[in-house]
Amino acid sequence: MSGNTLGKFFAVTNFGESHGPAIGCVIDGCPPGMALSEADIQPDLERRRPGTSSFVTQRAEADLVEILSGVYQGTTTGTPICLLIRNTDQRSKDYSDIAQSFRPGHADYTYWRKYGLRDPRGGGRSSARLTAPTVAAGAVAKKWLREQFGTTLRGCMTHIGDIAIGFEGWEHVCRNPFFAPVADVSAIEDHMHALRKSGDSCGARLRVSVQRVPAGLGEPLYDRLDADIAHALMGLNAVKGVEIGDGFASVAHKGSMHGDALLPGGSARFASNHDGGVLGGISNGQDLEVAIALKPTSSILLPRPSINTAGQPVEVITKGRHDPCVGIRATPIAEALLALVVMDHALRDRAQCGSAPWRAQNV
Amino acid sequence: MSGNTLGKFFAVTNFGESHGPAIGCVIDGCPPGMALSEADIQPDLERRRPGTSSFVTQRAEADLVEILSGVYQGTTTGTPICLLIRNTDQRSKDYSDIAQSFRPGHADYTYWRKYGLRDPRGGGRSSARLTAPTVAAGAVAKKWLREQFGTTLRGCMTHIGDIAIGFEGWEHVCRNPFFAPVADVSAIEDHMHALRKSGDSCGARLRVSVQRVPAGLGEPLYDRLDADIAHALMGLNAVKGVEIGDGFASVAHKGSMHGDALLPGGSARFASNHDGGVLGGISNGQDLEVAIALKPTSSILLPRPSINTAGQPVEVITKGRHDPCVGIRATPIAEALLALVVMDHALRDRAQCGSAPWRAQNV
Amino acid sequence: MSGNTLGKFFAVTNFGESHGPAIGCVIDGCPPGMALSEADIQPDLERRRPGTSSFVTQRAEADLVEILSGVYQGTTTGTPICLLIRNTDQRSKDYSDIAQSFRPGHADYTYWRKYGLRDPRGGGRSSARLTAPTVAAGAVAKKWLREQFGTTLRGCMTHIGDIAIGFEGWEHVCRNPFFAPVADVSAIEDHMHALRKSGDSCGARLRVSVQRVPAGLGEPLYDRLDADIAHALMGLNAVKGVEIGDGFASVAHKGSMHGDALLPGGSARFASNHDGGVLGGISNGQDLEVAIALKPTSSILLPRPSINTAGQPVEVITKGRHDPCVGIRATPIAEALLALVVMDHALRDRAQCGSAPWRAQNV
Amino acid sequence: MSGNTLGKFFAVTNFGESHGPAIGCVIDGCPPGMALSEADIQPDLERRRPGTSSFVTQRAEADLVEILSGVYQGTTTGTPICLLIRNTDQRSKDYSDIAQSFRPGHADYTYWRKYGLRDPRGGGRSSARLTAPTVAAGAVAKKWLREQFGTTLRGCMTHIGDIAIGFEGWEHVCRNPFFAPVADVSAIEDHMHALRKSGDSCGARLRVSVQRVPAGLGEPLYDRLDADIAHALMGLNAVKGVEIGDGFASVAHKGSMHGDALLPGGSARFASNHDGGVLGGISNGQDLEVAIALKPTSSILLPRPSINTAGQPVEVITKGRHDPCVGIRATPIAEALLALVVMDHALRDRAQCGSAPWRAQNV
Repeated sequence: MSGNTLGKFFAVTNFGESHGPAIGCVIDGCPPGMALSEADIQPDLERRRPGTSSFVTQRAEADLVEILSGVYQGTTTGTPICLLIRNTDQRSKDYSDIAQSFRPGHADYTYWRKYGLRDPRGGGRSSARLTAPTVAAGAVAKKWLREQFGTTLRGCMTHIGDIAIGFEGWEHVCRNPFFAPVADVSAIEDHMHALRKSGDSCGARLRVSVQRVPAGLGEPLYDRLDADIAHALMGLNAVKGVEIGDGFASVAHKGSMHGDALLPGGSARFASNHDGGVLGGISNGQDLEVAIALKPTSSILLPRPSINTAGQPVEVITKGRHDPCVGIRATPIAEALLALVVMDHALRDRAQCGSAPWRAQNV
Repeated sequence: MSGNTLGKFFAVTNFGESHGPAIGCVIDGCPPGMALSEADIQPDLERRRPGTSSFVTQRAEADLVEILSGVYQGTTTGTPICLLIRNTDQRSKDYSDIAQSFRPGHADYTYWRKYGLRDPRGGGRSSARLTAPTVAAGAVAKKWLREQFGTTLRGCMTHIGDIAIGFEGWEHVCRNPFFAPVADVSAIEDHMHALRKSGDSCGARLRVSVQRVPAGLGEPLYDRLDADIAHALMGLNAVKGVEIGDGFASVAHKGSMHGDALLPGGSARFASNHDGGVLGGISNGQDLEVAIALKPTSSILLPRPSINTAGQPVEVITKGRHDPCVGIRATPIAEALLALVVMDHALRDRAQCGSAPWRAQNV
Repeated sequence: MSGNTLGKFFAVTNFGESHGPAIGCVIDGCPPGMALSEADIQPDLERRRPGTSSFVTQRAEADLVEILSGVYQGTTTGTPICLLIRNTDQRSKDYSDIAQSFRPGHADYTYWRKYGLRDPRGGGRSSARLTAPTVAAGAVAKKWLREQFGTTLRGCMTHIGDIAIGFEGWEHVCRNPFFAPVADVSAIEDHMHALRKSGDSCGARLRVSVQRVPAGLGEPLYDRLDADIAHALMGLNAVKGVEIGDGFASVAHKGSMHGDALLPGGSARFASNHDGGVLGGISNGQDLEVAIALKPTSSILLPRPSINTAGQPVEVITKGRHDPCVGIRATPIAEALLALVVMDHALRDRAQCGSAPWRAQNV
Repeated sequence: MSGNTLGKFFAVTNFGESHGPAIGCVIDGCPPGMALSEADIQPDLERRRPGTSSFVTQRAEADLVEILSGVYQGTTTGTPICLLIRNTDQRSKDYSDIAQSFRPGHADYTYWRKYGLRDPRGGGRSSARLTAPTVAAGAVAKKWLREQFGTTLRGCMTHIGDIAIGFEGWEHVCRNPFFAPVADVSAIEDHMHALRKSGDSCGARLRVSVQRVPAGLGEPLYDRLDADIAHALMGLNAVKGVEIGDGFASVAHKGSMHGDALLPGGSARFASNHDGGVLGGISNGQDLEVAIALKPTSSILLPRPSINTAGQPVEVITKGRHDPCVGIRATPIAEALLALVVMDHALRDRAQCGSAPWRAQNV
């Protein structure tokens, strides 16, 4: 019941701390016979890598992944795949001053309450850096899903702070440092420049969409596909809300309007996708549509009242290198988490229903 | 990796279909030595029972729970507790006409795609009726948490359809059939009467709050407390969104405003609770604050275009007895799910950190 | 991490006590579309039922199984299957006198140490009666394996007390109450009559063999097929030893003699089966050969020194109805456990390797 | 449901292949606050290291363990502990000639059947080398158990080939390369010299004993302490049999003789230990007594008939460096596996029963 493992069959066990010697993960349950090399994984790591623009932390990590096991002569063997990423840029001194005090909104307080001690270097285990192994594992899942079903994943930022970004097209996402689906990001740039000058941080809202998901993935109760998606994404640093399909907007909907009408045709088509691709916890073959809310970075330059480990009042100022908006680099991470959930359920579904004749229509 | 089990240590395995002989669950991992009888469980079942007002389904089920195992002379023995609820009111004929067609927005299509067959009687496994065993198991968790930590859970409805209900006080919740925290529910009654007359349905938004949760519950990555809360609640029928603390409102927040300042004092106190009681996936000792969005009931009396199992166009009208708003009876279910998650993490935390000297301050 | 669940994908959760209202289990993960009724399960329950001969406990239980869920119109739906067996013959008074003292070799002492209390009625949870739900679940697994791969399971008794029974043929097993593979069981009968007269009990050694097991079942490390077989069988009441293939005889073997030579031919054949069908934790397509040792029944009529819950010396005499040799009724239970392990691994293997082209040769 | 993970709460996930860049494991669930460094782990690795005598494989590996995570300033933090061991001595060419053929009694055939491909270098994942991470993880468990309960583990060889070694005392075990509990091992040396000269291999029988195990560890059904011990040890390379207490000798026992009488006294004492410390699947406070049978090494120098991947007959001769008796180095591995099982159950028991007043007597 390892709490640091995601997935029940395609199981990813994550390890490491921000400033330890290395971070990484072990993937157990990967199907054998898939071509895999570091080159399949590195591109996604590049997308979430720090130091790529002036709008994210200036920590400079190469984030080079090394495959330690599970691959022989460029092919997965079916045995556990260990992915290792060495930590190279560690300025522990930046954090020494906050080792004994707690940042408002930061996990350092809760770690201390749970474990009685914590690794203060760069946030230790609670650092967003630990999402790198998740992204690496997600790249493996993405490749298998793409080869098996033609599944594709796309994510973008839809809101940053109080700015609604709007949606012009997926093609814009890779052309700006914000993963924004619009051509002109000058307004976002101005907002972020002003934010950094103020020493403050802001939140963001992201959208992730998955195309060509087989119908039939998910379990009736508890381990529903949408439940596991919510588990994976709410488990991402700073996420405070998750929506499937129309999400909270569904509250004001009428059933006559919300229910997606099924249309006649070879494989089922629908007149709309208010449900975001999941019905009764099981995928219906439509695109999975997921949205998440990320809170503002808790580590900011502005002084704030807090307490220290002795319970005495202190004023906390967080120096060091931090993302003014953790949401900026979260898009590839959210994609990876979604890929891991879909991958896990694809294997679970194959276990239980794999031999059923009607399954053919799913691929 | 049973998909119908909730929790890793306090593990609840749910079984049954709406119109089968019985529904129920098996609780494994319950601590021994706790006084327990049906009288501890029945009250919560009464709160979610159908037929209690003109605003919910008129299906009349006694929903009497029977403890089949795990209790000896009124005390839990530490062995699995099986809770059984017999189905008594089954009008299968009501559903015979829709056995071969699919309701827009309903799980009957996805079950058919996954399993190649389905139990159409009352929605079979996908019926909201299957939340009864969850509520029963939740009552056991609530009792243990209350006796162990003084933990209490409270839920209410905050929106129904396009009506914002507001919050006047918890004392009102038990005085109206909507679990609304207000004295005057006439506006809600009018809304629901009109809705039923129209044959349509609507969504709802609920809030659940947990008091006196020990600090230190949850795991660093993946199995975070908030992640498991999201998993449990997104797994509830019709839920399309989950928020912790300020949820999606956090997007527009500044870090300087969002981070909850810690105040000096014996046990940690905070100046605010934007984070809803969870930091870095671990409880911080504040109240857990959770909100969920439920979509409109998919079974409505209005005719809608759809297809049948042969892929041909049909018009679907759902007769039978349905809740015009599934959110109305969802409050005790959401409380139960939250109790199950907190209970599971309380035991998991005790396993790993139970002997640590600093844990004393947690109870 | 429910400790009362067997299997990770085909997961059987067992509940109940010997003298509670009922015992049973929930099977999660059963493939949909398989014909199933009580008639498929009852025959195996009959084989392990008490009161069938003068050599086993005279407790008279009908052991009628009821399918409460997971089956619709005679076909598995893919949702959890709850199997219920009501307890009908409960003479609690037989056990009242031993409620406060501990039987040497019996679980009542360890339950008391673990839980601080115990259900003394008929041994409560530790009663061999709790193997009935396991047998029922095993019957479901047997049916699926038989239909999917033509897999068959056969068990027999090879030793009882100090009598080596020998092996004349499987056809004899169903013709005597001992599951002995020999035509003449008079020696066994004499032995058991003398044993009962003496008020004592004895142990037994059983063999279980599985034919037509697909090659490729099992995982490289830890969850090996043989490891999970050992887990399942050592978990059976009174079992103190498990062997795969030549077992302990392998110690004195030379590698040149022990290694089973592979022979040319369409699908792999072997010159011998010293390894009992498992190599490196993975099935090789040969018959699975397993042997187990069961200790003597701990509940005997002879007086023995012991202590009570106050730690004071007492003399214990166990009245009531007990099997003089628990091994006699263990054969169908061991078959069921083996079927459950193979079933679980068949589904796990399909999840990971199901789509591989070379898998065709496995069925 | 990762198949390469051992333990449900103290969960050890193993990765790597014999000739890949590295092997290792991730331990999740380790309690925080325990002093830990490589120096606590290396000694056990030395005990199972190859090349230490002329009676084991001459492969020369330093087997230096590196702690990559989960430890800060010499103390466990409660987060996952990754233990890495680099592979340094890899003579892949030794194995190239057998890449396309199958060794009788070796896993290379079953891996090929399961995965459709295999890593032939040094046996890949099936190599006994993969027990090194298990030993490393076991050292962590041993330390915690010793500090918590004073638990100690001791293992020795009792039979090698057809030689019964006997037992003179634990003090001899560390003084000879066979882990034999006798002063004079000349007979064993002669046997092994003759064996190596013949190019053949032999099996072995080991005993492992655990002292000061708290009473109350284990679960009623399925996940019994003895069941999980059998799972862990049968999962060790070459093991074909596992016994608890008197094991197979129990078959010929009478209940009046086998049942261990409880003696009056402060904490329970017993007149004997035929049950090997486990009753009804739960520890009774006596020493755990476990025995295992290991088959002869399958890789031998003698020519044997076999087939190749094309199904054609071939003659196989295994060159390279192999242990003539894998049992020789298995003692520290068996100790580690037993420590991991007891550790896992100690945490699981604390989760469920940790707060019970009667637990004090257990430590």
